[in-house]
Amino acid sequence: MTGFGTLSFSARNTFVGVPMRTLETIGDAGVVILGAPFDWGTTYRPGARFGPAAVRDADYLEPDGRRPHLDTGIDPLEVLGVVDIGDVAVVPGYIEDGIDRIRRVVSAVAATGAVPLVIGGDHTITFPDAGGVADVYGHGEIALIHFDAHADTGASHYGMLHGHGTPMRRLIESGAVPGDRFVQIGLRGYWPEPETVAWMRQQGMRSFFMGEIVERGLAAVVDDAVRHAATGARGVFISVDIDVVDPAAAPGTGTPEPGGLTARELLDTIRRLGRDLQIVGADVVEVAPVYDPANITALLANRVILELLNGMAQRSLAG
Amino acid sequence: MTGFGTLSFSARNTFVGVPMRTLETIGDAGVVILGAPFDWGTTYRPGARFGPAAVRDADYLEPDGRRPHLDTGIDPLEVLGVVDIGDVAVVPGYIEDGIDRIRRVVSAVAATGAVPLVIGGDHTITFPDAGGVADVYGHGEIALIHFDAHADTGASHYGMLHGHGTPMRRLIESGAVPGDRFVQIGLRGYWPEPETVAWMRQQGMRSFFMGEIVERGLAAVVDDAVRHAATGARGVFISVDIDVVDPAAAPGTGTPEPGGLTARELLDTIRRLGRDLQIVGADVVEVAPVYDPANITALLANRVILELLNGMAQRSLAG
Amino acid sequence: MTGFGTLSFSARNTFVGVPMRTLETIGDAGVVILGAPFDWGTTYRPGARFGPAAVRDADYLEPDGRRPHLDTGIDPLEVLGVVDIGDVAVVPGYIEDGIDRIRRVVSAVAATGAVPLVIGGDHTITFPDAGGVADVYGHGEIALIHFDAHADTGASHYGMLHGHGTPMRRLIESGAVPGDRFVQIGLRGYWPEPETVAWMRQQGMRSFFMGEIVERGLAAVVDDAVRHAATGARGVFISVDIDVVDPAAAPGTGTPEPGGLTARELLDTIRRLGRDLQIVGADVVEVAPVYDPANITALLANRVILELLNGMAQRSLAG
Amino acid sequence: MTGFGTLSFSARNTFVGVPMRTLETIGDAGVVILGAPFDWGTTYRPGARFGPAAVRDADYLEPDGRRPHLDTGIDPLEVLGVVDIGDVAVVPGYIEDGIDRIRRVVSAVAATGAVPLVIGGDHTITFPDAGGVADVYGHGEIALIHFDAHADTGASHYGMLHGHGTPMRRLIESGAVPGDRFVQIGLRGYWPEPETVAWMRQQGMRSFFMGEIVERGLAAVVDDAVRHAATGARGVFISVDIDVVDPAAAPGTGTPEPGGLTARELLDTIRRLGRDLQIVGADVVEVAPVYDPANITALLANRVILELLNGMAQRSLAG
Amino acid sequence: MTGFGTLSFSARNTFVGVPMRTLETIGDAGVVILGAPFDWGTTYRPGARFGPAAVRDADYLEPDGRRPHLDTGIDPLEVLGVVDIGDVAVVPGYIEDGIDRIRRVVSAVAATGAVPLVIGGDHTITFPDAGGVADVYGHGEIALIHFDAHADTGASHYGMLHGHGTPMRRLIESGAVPGDRFVQIGLRGYWPEPETVAWMRQQGMRSFFMGEIVERGLAAVVDDAVRHAATGARGVFISVDIDVVDPAAAPGTGTPEPGGLTARELLDTIRRLGRDLQIVGADVVEVAPVYDPANITALLANRVILELLNGMAQRSLAG
Amino acid sequence: MTGFGTLSFSARNTFVGVPMRTLETIGDAGVVILGAPFDWGTTYRPGARFGPAAVRDADYLEPDGRRPHLDTGIDPLEVLGVVDIGDVAVVPGYIEDGIDRIRRVVSAVAATGAVPLVIGGDHTITFPDAGGVADVYGHGEIALIHFDAHADTGASHYGMLHGHGTPMRRLIESGAVPGDRFVQIGLRGYWPEPETVAWMRQQGMRSFFMGEIVERGLAAVVDDAVRHAATGARGVFISVDIDVVDPAAAPGTGTPEPGGLTARELLDTIRRLGRDLQIVGADVVEVAPVYDPANITALLANRVILELLNGMAQRSLAG
Repeated sequence: MTGFGTLSFSARNTFVGVPMRTLETIGDAGVVILGAPFDWGTTYRPGARFGPAAVRDADYLEPDGRRPHLDTGIDPLEVLGVVDIGDVAVVPGYIEDGIDRIRRVVSAVAATGAVPLVIGGDHTITFPDAGGVADVYGHGEIALIHFDAHADTGASHYGMLHGHGTPMRRLIESGAVPGDRFVQIGLRGYWPEPETVAWMRQQGMRSFFMGEIVERGLAAVVDDAVRHAATGARGVFISVDIDVVDPAAAPGTGTPEPGGLTARELLDTIRRLGRDLQIVGADVVEVAPVYDPANITALLANRVILELLNGMAQRSLAG
Repeated sequence: MTGFGTLSFSARNTFVGVPMRTLETIGDAGVVILGAPFDWGTTYRPGARFGPAAVRDADYLEPDGRRPHLDTGIDPLEVLGVVDIGDVAVVPGYIEDGIDRIRRVVSAVAATGAVPLVIGGDHTITFPDAGGVADVYGHGEIALIHFDAHADTGASHYGMLHGHGTPMRRLIESGAVPGDRFVQIGLRGYWPEPETVAWMRQQGMRSFFMGEIVERGLAAVVDDAVRHAATGARGVFISVDIDVVDPAAAPGTGTPEPGGLTARELLDTIRRLGRDLQIVGADVVEVAPVYDPANITALLANRVILELLNGMAQRSLAG
Repeated sequence: MTGFGTLSFSARNTFVGVPMRTLETIGDAGVVILGAPFDWGTTYRPGARFGPAAVRDADYLEPDGRRPHLDTGIDPLEVLGVVDIGDVAVVPGYIEDGIDRIRRVVSAVAATGAVPLVIGGDHTITFPDAGGVADVYGHGEIALIHFDAHADTGASHYGMLHGHGTPMRRLIESGAVPGDRFVQIGLRGYWPEPETVAWMRQQGMRSFFMGEIVERGLAAVVDDAVRHAATGARGVFISVDIDVVDPAAAPGTGTPEPGGLTARELLDTIRRLGRDLQIVGADVVEVAPVYDPANITALLANRVILELLNGMAQRSLAG
Repeated sequence: MTGFGTLSFSARNTFVGVPMRTLETIGDAGVVILGAPFDWGTTYRPGARFGPAAVRDADYLEPDGRRPHLDTGIDPLEVLGVVDIGDVAVVPGYIEDGIDRIRRVVSAVAATGAVPLVIGGDHTITFPDAGGVADVYGHGEIALIHFDAHADTGASHYGMLHGHGTPMRRLIESGAVPGDRFVQIGLRGYWPEPETVAWMRQQGMRSFFMGEIVERGLAAVVDDAVRHAATGARGVFISVDIDVVDPAAAPGTGTPEPGGLTARELLDTIRRLGRDLQIVGADVVEVAPVYDPANITALLANRVILELLNGMAQRSLAG
Repeated sequence: MTGFGTLSFSARNTFVGVPMRTLETIGDAGVVILGAPFDWGTTYRPGARFGPAAVRDADYLEPDGRRPHLDTGIDPLEVLGVVDIGDVAVVPGYIEDGIDRIRRVVSAVAATGAVPLVIGGDHTITFPDAGGVADVYGHGEIALIHFDAHADTGASHYGMLHGHGTPMRRLIESGAVPGDRFVQIGLRGYWPEPETVAWMRQQGMRSFFMGEIVERGLAAVVDDAVRHAATGARGVFISVDIDVVDPAAAPGTGTPEPGGLTARELLDTIRRLGRDLQIVGADVVEVAPVYDPANITALLANRVILELLNGMAQRSLAG
Repeated sequence: MTGFGTLSFSARNTFVGVPMRTLETIGDAGVVILGAPFDWGTTYRPGARFGPAAVRDADYLEPDGRRPHLDTGIDPLEVLGVVDIGDVAVVPGYIEDGIDRIRRVVSAVAATGAVPLVIGGDHTITFPDAGGVADVYGHGEIALIHFDAHADTGASHYGMLHGHGTPMRRLIESGAVPGDRFVQIGLRGYWPEPETVAWMRQQGMRSFFMGEIVERGLAAVVDDAVRHAATGARGVFISVDIDVVDPAAAPGTGTPEPGGLTARELLDTIRRLGRDLQIVGADVVEVAPVYDPANITALLANRVILELLNGMAQRSLAG
């Protein structure tokens, strides 16, 4: 159900050259990368189906499966045992079938004890991504830290259940991740409407708007997030919508919203979370390469993954 | 079920400024333009959901609802009574629901006696476009002339029924348009596979490959097409995939295939067909503006529509 | 003299879907949006004539005329009564005639008691924008806060009176806005020459260069600006040249100058000004979409307008 | 009044490196190149002010002032004595002043006996270009062959006299070039309206639409053009709007119209005209580089100039 | 010395998914594809180092190693036994070393009896490509048909021996391919200078300029080329510089020259040559993807390869 | 050996219009600008050969050779006596020859007492740039402050000596600039590998990673850098790789690395260094315009040069 080059738009290569595996040959890998080339949940500019391929290939270094960090010298790909099983074979336009396929694969990966790290695709996939992990760790047992300009808690997708504006609602409603285990960072703009914001508060979601981040400082907010997420959960799922970053640094996305984080802020924060928390899954979504002539957005997403892995490797070595 | 600006990506304006209508207020319009901002049936580059808006707005002339033809002085918008009812409200990722919605609208338009002219959107929509017209004129009663680089007769869409590679198969299988009422012009490349080509021949489809067009000349091929389509049918549906034109002149599309018609050839041929045949419906599909920095593909599609209307107006006046 | 789609390059839709009006049907609207698709005053890259259309349409949300703010839940479009009267019909190349037309429309809007909010267009238009407001409130009676990389106080436009480098000079010289009622924020670079900078000081203009902003902090500078502008004036006109923002976040403009504000800084500052000051008019200028492949500059300008309206709505409710 | 780098957007280098001159130092040059970086007459996409710089610099060969033709070995730059006097200093937004300046320079060049060859800029400039030549050769004494998708015979420019849609009307009305000395090649589309087409016929203009060109062949049409233009005139002015070529090969222009000539057809025709006719002036207009990511349109215009010069050199040598 | 992903810019995948091999494991493959990601021989716009990757991946079909031709149903990948050995590991800036490495690999491939098909890279590589084949078949024993806008017979590369303007000179001078075994198709423009054209004639090169092609028709010219190339040679090497095609259809190249072949003309001609001649080697060069926002140039090069293989497969089956 | 327009890709104009000179006519100029249009040392995206032309021409102000600074009114072009001698004539693909040519020219400039300021080109050129200055001031006698995302201390360039990843190694190994006279600012990412980082420390290089800059603040880091560089050296060479800035503000480069400085930070720091240190040479490298549709990267590099000159002029006047 996963593979390389299965679809014309799915990835053909592993993430920066880590070993190529199938679901059956994961072995004792610590982290398993997979892609979900899925963009039919977008309500505006599509193109994120090319995200999994673009993010894996975005680099000026050779795809040799080695990425020692400049600061620490640690190569998380080796420390953690990172492999790549390719992209889930999702069919354009069949949204519910695609969600099911992704969830089955993510669950299967998590069931091996490895950390699934999913490259999107649009944000619709966080429902099966985090849901699939929760299927293994127990509904209600994991926390979710969500970086995004948008809350993605819409009640419906133009009258339907699934789309890239609703995954967090579906996760909460289904019990996979309860509202009080949610932390959101970077929200801004004019969506969703007040009724939904009220619902979010009723669920106990902790949502940090950019206004609060500017006022209190990002570090303080992340302190809160770490405390909130770490308390009582068996582990944490990190979901990064690349549009949490300002469109200046992440133009290649479907629904950019001005006024976001800098790339530097996101990278440092993500590494810290990998180090401070028990990560059980992650996804990086909404990279739409066609809107990015210099390819800087896919490159940023590539580095977000590497920084997360670096943090996790530091934690692992600190063991 | 249709309207302007209903979705973030649907058209906000009528085609070159013709009168804005709803399905209920078509009145005695001769031609009704509508959009299907639908691109989740694409197997490669999406983006055609922005086609309906881009094609309607693509012009350097004011949107005053007047377009007298330079050659003839005829303004088909006035002669035919052309109006625009906006875009069908289709939901990203829900392909079968979208097909149903489109078909209901197209049928309703055709049932008034007007000619529905649908701006896509990916080619998936020709199943409901031509199917909706056939629902009114009778299954088996209309012919279809199909301009495309691709036959779109795939047996399945990655194992599913609907996608932009299967609409012609679905039309034939459903009996809406029998194979021997099909004419295809401009096919080339390496798809579909020989089994499907054999199936196409068994159905009696008349497929003109570019090789034959180069050898015999386009005029001769179109003579055959007119003869074939006119015989015994109550009317003809014209489906234009903009990728029938060479990528030089139509780069803004999802699956470009080198070696196609020139823009001039397509425009002249389409006008001729409007003049020589009884048109009962049409669609122009697969314009994906994001791949077209100078916007020449949407502009070409705009002119394809105007030339078709010009031919129809000449026929009407010759009445 | 204003309208939608009057010119091939003028806007066809209202700002995010607010009600469409004419000058005659403004009624008791609190804010009236209008466009000035005017770019023949540019001394370098033109293209801002497409600004009014692009800024109004730049969004991934539906154009439903509703934009409740995420932080406060307030929808300023409703609170303030925001309507849109389309673009002034200006004729390319006839700069003085265009200035007259814009001034007449802006004056007429201000005369109704509504706040005119003009979308440019190049910065030439601030002469008629602020001038037209001053015609109603009294010459010398309004203050102007001007966000820009450039002072726009040039003595001449290549020997002529009007262009996008001279509007502030013309406003001061004409007495519409005296120099000591001017506050400028964000200036940087190598223009204008020292003689003009000396003239600016003689006029009592308060110009905050980026150097000072970095040194003292933006908040302190804005405190000064608020104090300066509020003192003794009947109201404040806000003029935002999008190039006050660093080219990273605002590439789509004619004369980008590296080293500017972040988008976040501008958005927060603008909202604050709307809340702290009595706004009597505003313009947002110099968005040139063709230089912005991901459309992030038009989107930023759209948000600048929404944040200004949010501040004004907060003030109004606090009223 | 002309020069290099006088304005931020004017050309800084001579055409392919030919000698740099001023109006005063033309000497006995046979052909004088000059630019008119003027785009405030455009009714849609501006940007042609960068045409004079882009067309001069568009080449992968060194700017050494030598361009022997591959076919003939003739270097027309040497044979004809081609020099470049830079761009007229026109002021953005002051359309009538700009027209006057251009006309004075062109007249002055023609008065020396040299052939002025003007690089635009938008088509507004053909009024002063051809008018300035006619001022020297006598009103009514020169013919004009006009390559364009558009007739440019509009009665007004949004109510004003001058713009890029009216120069041919102004030339005829002023008597500089009578209607029966006009030949137009490549017209197509939906403008101007029938009343203007009727006026064109009344003036005795010979307008070849693309329909006739396709039907009769380009060669036959050009035979007619040559015959028509050569009869009784003291010389011929060639005006090439790059949009006569299909947008596939000339996307970088303001008002592209699908269905035009190929680049090959234009190049061959232009060379022939240079050889067959007594050329007294020429312009190449409407190159707007920002719409052309691969720079192929400026390159095409560069070659149009070289082919015209080649034809003229052949004629000169055949002398 | 060859491989996949060895350099950051070398290809990571095989051509449309054909089997991956090394030089050692070619076995009895009939055609061996390899890449030369080499662009430091370019005299203008570089970028062709990304050609080998882009041309292999350019398709909207799955990379399944199957490409039955629509016209004939033949899949040349199967008929001929096509494999891919990746890219030669060439080092940027070390031009002579790179030439040596390419030549050794090409020779080694040809020595197995397989046909080497090299994807460039700039045209510098035809010296080692055709030279390497001649090393096996004998200097003087193979003919070369060269599609290009440029003769590439320059005496020097800015004073040095090797560059993309000199390979044909080097081949002739070295005796690998004598001048009278050369056929060139599509030359045009203003380079090289007359002395070089004279040298070309002295060598007995048969150069078809676009002028002759337009006049006599492409078919007649190709008849001559086939006759000339087939006479007395043991086989033919085909070298296709994508800039032989008009920039409209091939903008993504370093030195585009207006007025070239259409894509259709090139594709049909290449297939014919594969069918009519004994092909012993080929290269397709000068695709520079960064200049091609819609990726149509890499796609065209991909089809040029497929059409050549189709012709060869037809010849093979005809036995 | 230097000049304007010597190569098709070399600059044709002087930096913002300063006087044009040759190596022989420098006279008593204080600063001599020259270009090195050299990009065959790049390991990924080439294109920096167009940097020297793009950086010189990047401005919306006229090229009048005057640039008084807005803050201070000082025009460093006049104060320092800045001239431009054009680009070194380097030959694509001949890397060692090119390095030699650049070094000879830089040495010759430095020998006159002027400060050479080199516009790249890729970073390979800092070996001859700083080396050429050291040839004059004495090996071991100058310090180097290096702004970059990358250390550029690689042991080899794919097995060869020279490339854009090795210049700092070559400078240290050759003794031209000893390791303990090196300061690096802005390093980040995943290259070079730990062995090289260890080697860097052994050499006494002072490398400030972004992590340290975020933690301690840029001002503190620059204090250290100034102290380190000023101690015991006869002068300082500044090398600015534009990729030290975040890709948001500098997308037009070959190897962008997310998480860098803002444009404002770089500009302010560079001016300070010019003021605080004795500058003996500088280069600004790795601007690749083709990756920068709005041209903001070349513009930033242009301002980096102006700010450096401003600082130097302030120092000179304070002298």
